[in-house]
Amino acid sequence: MSNKLSVILGNLGNTCDRFCKSYKNNPSTLEMLDQAVKIPYVEGIELVGTWDISPSNVKEMKKRFEDYGVTCVSVIPDVFGDKEFSKGTLTSTQPAIRKKALDYLRQMSEVALEMNCGILNMWMAQDGYDYLLTTDYDQEREWLREGTAALAKEFPTLKFALEYKPKEPRNFSYHARMSDTLLAALETGCPNVGVTIDTGHGFVAGENIAEAVVLAKRAGDRLFHMHFNDNHGAWDDDMIVASVHSTIYIDLMYWLKKTGYQGWLSMDQYPYRENAVDAITESIMWVKRFAEIVDENFNEIEGLVKLNDAVATSRFMRKILFAK
Amino acid sequence: MSNKLSVILGNLGNTCDRFCKSYKNNPSTLEMLDQAVKIPYVEGIELVGTWDISPSNVKEMKKRFEDYGVTCVSVIPDVFGDKEFSKGTLTSTQPAIRKKALDYLRQMSEVALEMNCGILNMWMAQDGYDYLLTTDYDQEREWLREGTAALAKEFPTLKFALEYKPKEPRNFSYHARMSDTLLAALETGCPNVGVTIDTGHGFVAGENIAEAVVLAKRAGDRLFHMHFNDNHGAWDDDMIVASVHSTIYIDLMYWLKKTGYQGWLSMDQYPYRENAVDAITESIMWVKRFAEIVDENFNEIEGLVKLNDAVATSRFMRKILFAK
Amino acid sequence: MSNKLSVILGNLGNTCDRFCKSYKNNPSTLEMLDQAVKIPYVEGIELVGTWDISPSNVKEMKKRFEDYGVTCVSVIPDVFGDKEFSKGTLTSTQPAIRKKALDYLRQMSEVALEMNCGILNMWMAQDGYDYLLTTDYDQEREWLREGTAALAKEFPTLKFALEYKPKEPRNFSYHARMSDTLLAALETGCPNVGVTIDTGHGFVAGENIAEAVVLAKRAGDRLFHMHFNDNHGAWDDDMIVASVHSTIYIDLMYWLKKTGYQGWLSMDQYPYRENAVDAITESIMWVKRFAEIVDENFNEIEGLVKLNDAVATSRFMRKILFAK
Amino acid sequence: MSNKLSVILGNLGNTCDRFCKSYKNNPSTLEMLDQAVKIPYVEGIELVGTWDISPSNVKEMKKRFEDYGVTCVSVIPDVFGDKEFSKGTLTSTQPAIRKKALDYLRQMSEVALEMNCGILNMWMAQDGYDYLLTTDYDQEREWLREGTAALAKEFPTLKFALEYKPKEPRNFSYHARMSDTLLAALETGCPNVGVTIDTGHGFVAGENIAEAVVLAKRAGDRLFHMHFNDNHGAWDDDMIVASVHSTIYIDLMYWLKKTGYQGWLSMDQYPYRENAVDAITESIMWVKRFAEIVDENFNEIEGLVKLNDAVATSRFMRKILFAK
Repeated sequence: MSNKLSVILGNLGNTCDRFCKSYKNNPSTLEMLDQAVKIPYVEGIELVGTWDISPSNVKEMKKRFEDYGVTCVSVIPDVFGDKEFSKGTLTSTQPAIRKKALDYLRQMSEVALEMNCGILNMWMAQDGYDYLLTTDYDQEREWLREGTAALAKEFPTLKFALEYKPKEPRNFSYHARMSDTLLAALETGCPNVGVTIDTGHGFVAGENIAEAVVLAKRAGDRLFHMHFNDNHGAWDDDMIVASVHSTIYIDLMYWLKKTGYQGWLSMDQYPYRENAVDAITESIMWVKRFAEIVDENFNEIEGLVKLNDAVATSRFMRKILFAK
Repeated sequence: MSNKLSVILGNLGNTCDRFCKSYKNNPSTLEMLDQAVKIPYVEGIELVGTWDISPSNVKEMKKRFEDYGVTCVSVIPDVFGDKEFSKGTLTSTQPAIRKKALDYLRQMSEVALEMNCGILNMWMAQDGYDYLLTTDYDQEREWLREGTAALAKEFPTLKFALEYKPKEPRNFSYHARMSDTLLAALETGCPNVGVTIDTGHGFVAGENIAEAVVLAKRAGDRLFHMHFNDNHGAWDDDMIVASVHSTIYIDLMYWLKKTGYQGWLSMDQYPYRENAVDAITESIMWVKRFAEIVDENFNEIEGLVKLNDAVATSRFMRKILFAK
Repeated sequence: MSNKLSVILGNLGNTCDRFCKSYKNNPSTLEMLDQAVKIPYVEGIELVGTWDISPSNVKEMKKRFEDYGVTCVSVIPDVFGDKEFSKGTLTSTQPAIRKKALDYLRQMSEVALEMNCGILNMWMAQDGYDYLLTTDYDQEREWLREGTAALAKEFPTLKFALEYKPKEPRNFSYHARMSDTLLAALETGCPNVGVTIDTGHGFVAGENIAEAVVLAKRAGDRLFHMHFNDNHGAWDDDMIVASVHSTIYIDLMYWLKKTGYQGWLSMDQYPYRENAVDAITESIMWVKRFAEIVDENFNEIEGLVKLNDAVATSRFMRKILFAK
Repeated sequence: MSNKLSVILGNLGNTCDRFCKSYKNNPSTLEMLDQAVKIPYVEGIELVGTWDISPSNVKEMKKRFEDYGVTCVSVIPDVFGDKEFSKGTLTSTQPAIRKKALDYLRQMSEVALEMNCGILNMWMAQDGYDYLLTTDYDQEREWLREGTAALAKEFPTLKFALEYKPKEPRNFSYHARMSDTLLAALETGCPNVGVTIDTGHGFVAGENIAEAVVLAKRAGDRLFHMHFNDNHGAWDDDMIVASVHSTIYIDLMYWLKKTGYQGWLSMDQYPYRENAVDAITESIMWVKRFAEIVDENFNEIEGLVKLNDAVATSRFMRKILFAK
């Protein structure tokens, strides 16, 4: 496996839901960082904008990262936690909100550059809608295109990775699945706009995430980033990798390797009630093992995907999982 | 329509999700109450325990309710917002937590009685599990049975209405659907344990909620309470009634009338980004209209459900919806 | 409403499922045609290749259509009923099958031209896969692109409308949702390759089909055709329009008009146990009424989609549905 | 593992769907039987009524089973393939159909007894409904109760195992999930009416099938039979066991053992495009391996289900799956 492993820092923080304000304590960014770098095999960290990183602490954070010898893998702008963005950021019907959003994304892009970080991971969580017959889909998508393109052109050395998710917090997201997010990326005309796959978001979307990797490759090598977790299929449960599914992760790791994906493999969980470090460690160990399986059996897997025989694949999986 | 209309007070309060701590302001209980009683046709209010009502303010609240001339329809114990209950209340593996939960439910039962309120609406949100192969389902269901039965026996004049929901906040709830909740109610051996249907929870469960009414009737008249909202089918979006669906509400109202349901029709939404009073008013108007349609066409609908002909039903729906 | 109404002829035929070989009788193509043209407002008919139309009967069918004064709206090649195509047509791993499929599609294109029919409706039902880790997604998508492009270039005056559906008969389809089907159409580089929306397929895909219309518009006016039906959200139940949903159809009709869709509105049901003519008539009446509502309230709806207020939309829907 | 392995004979037969009449050839019952008994570890066979077994061939079949030394595990009455039952068998609104259905079920019960077979596996596939507001749920459930009870009382030595499934072929089934099927069984008042879990049906129902085992135990040891397969979560894809999921099968096998399930573990797939014998063999090998894992690690798993710690479970699963 040539890809490096990383984790989103906020995974180590407090958790909540709309019914319970706090399931854990509130560790500081520095406390979380100190824990995160000790997780086995972790070589990079993703930071949430405003919460973890901002113009006011970027110098200090850069120094910390250098001291720890870890890479800042991405900055994830907080476009989801600000009440003013509740009905959209770049797609808000209010010009002042759209401007505020674009300015904030610019600021975060600058912070990312200062951190020597290659990716702005844009999960445009509030850009979507809730009710039918309330939304000018065309106008809002156009604003989304304009804003994204403006940003990408201003920061040509930064990669803008659009992270898709079908719903939550909005009932419908504009960046909902791999293919509509690719269309959105292509619409900008900017080669530095691509896509982040979050494995669980793909499961909820009803996608095969291994095929999603291929879609991104075919659209011009647009897979910029990977987030790993698992769920029960109906919702973004943000669980430990492989808690529910197995074969799909091997299919995924095969296609990441086959398409030459060079990016990070980052853990993105939301351990509501679990010890965060332990839960992330588990995901790391699973992802690492799946990657090794693909490395060790690459030719055999390549044969299987050309063979098109469910029985042969099942035999292979038994051999892999239960070899003694 | 002989049923009265009500609303859960908290629907008028602040909203949040796991990404955004606050979409609105935080009105006080009394401010919300003042607004709620002005919503057209509202004759009752449901109160969330601890948040809205507790031993310390029950006398004052009772007085307020009398002044406003509204009924306290139910008390909903807050067993979802306390960090200590994060892995279960009556089903916690820790005896001290189980005891704390039962004591709290007792306290809320007393509060309910003091409010002359007939129903403790028990949405046992944290009683479930998240991960496979981590849970002693049998033991935890047994604790749930014991706790519920103890409560029901101590307060024989109170109705305990178990509100089911397949998931959220846990990945799997013990009270997940009408039929498993009926089994749980029957297991207690107590006639004052029954079920609350939340229409949206039923949609997410893949149930036909009209059929769920019949299931409750057949199990010994166990439908104790009704919560109304709508969603897109995959998640508890808690939207305005009839935003997405139509026919199902007529089917539902028919079976409520047919089975002699005498309880309240209560609005339970979560208007993340909407004006709460207006959104609840809309649901009230829809429910009222659906009930009127059933009243006005009862015999014709009775004929349709015996006829078993989708075409005849479609013609009826067109006549109802588009009559000029 | 400027759009004309049509029906797929096979909707009037026998029905079956994998457990029951036949729920009805087997009417002949001519018997079905004779019934279909009598359905109110129907001005066009879609024909399934091989079953209804082939080189051997094309002259006779053309004469019949002229006599009835109806238009042949599309030819739908039967690429789903032939055992040889069970693991794919244009995407089969066997070159001989791919060739057979392309030759058959050519033949059907010629038949379509002879019928003065503008659309080959390509529902590539078997082009997908069932099991994970068994498929070379990239190679198969490339074959699909090549075959589609070859066809589109050979028949530049014909529109090739790719009808998407997430699953059934394969567990995963290549043309699964609007956006991936747009990507597939764009990949061909041919302007005469576009998309068919089947409303029920969109519901199963978790899409908002009104937004899907906008996606197709933005990708270069690629919405070529519309199929109407309804379902319960989880599967392609192929039911009478508006049996389950309501608001979405108004949202859809608004965006069809707004984006200038000039194509047909065709009924595509599978009335397993219903009288087919009556069930199709119901759908026609619903679609017609929804279109009228949009015509009569166009400016008001335009205001609503710009207003972004769920309450205002709810009020409008109540006014529309329950006006007296 | 004390449970024996079996297969439904029809799994080796032809396959079809509503679009393609035949994916394979049509082997005879005897040809299928000859193949089925050679599948490793298979000691029992389930027969579909009418197709495989009827009064006319029961003597011959009994002899064959004796010759092969295999047990007839269940008879599955064909209440799904007869056009006359298209709108219900025991729940048909037509008295003559209800009578025909009951007579047929009686006949099949007699055949089962003659085969020394302990179970009538009743998958009441057509007993449900498709459209809202068309069905007298209460009356139809009452007919279902009456018919089932009549049968159970007439054949007290036979077990009647109700196999539930949320939908297909009807949009809603009366026996939809474990808990509503338990309610239906309990309503009969007959101890010889219980439930069959089909693992894939449970997945589609959104159930945790391991918990379903516990529900059946608590309702009075009502789990009579087990059918194994896998799917992608949204539909009854009837795939090879463990093609998609892993942990759930271990959870399931643990609870089968823990609750003292003594019945058969039967394979029930629908290998549309796969070699049937090979596909069934795969499922047998997976189920056998999962059972061994539970046998070998019973105490450790018992500790995990009491521990309630997702991380510990994940570590265990890694140890099990990747031990070298």
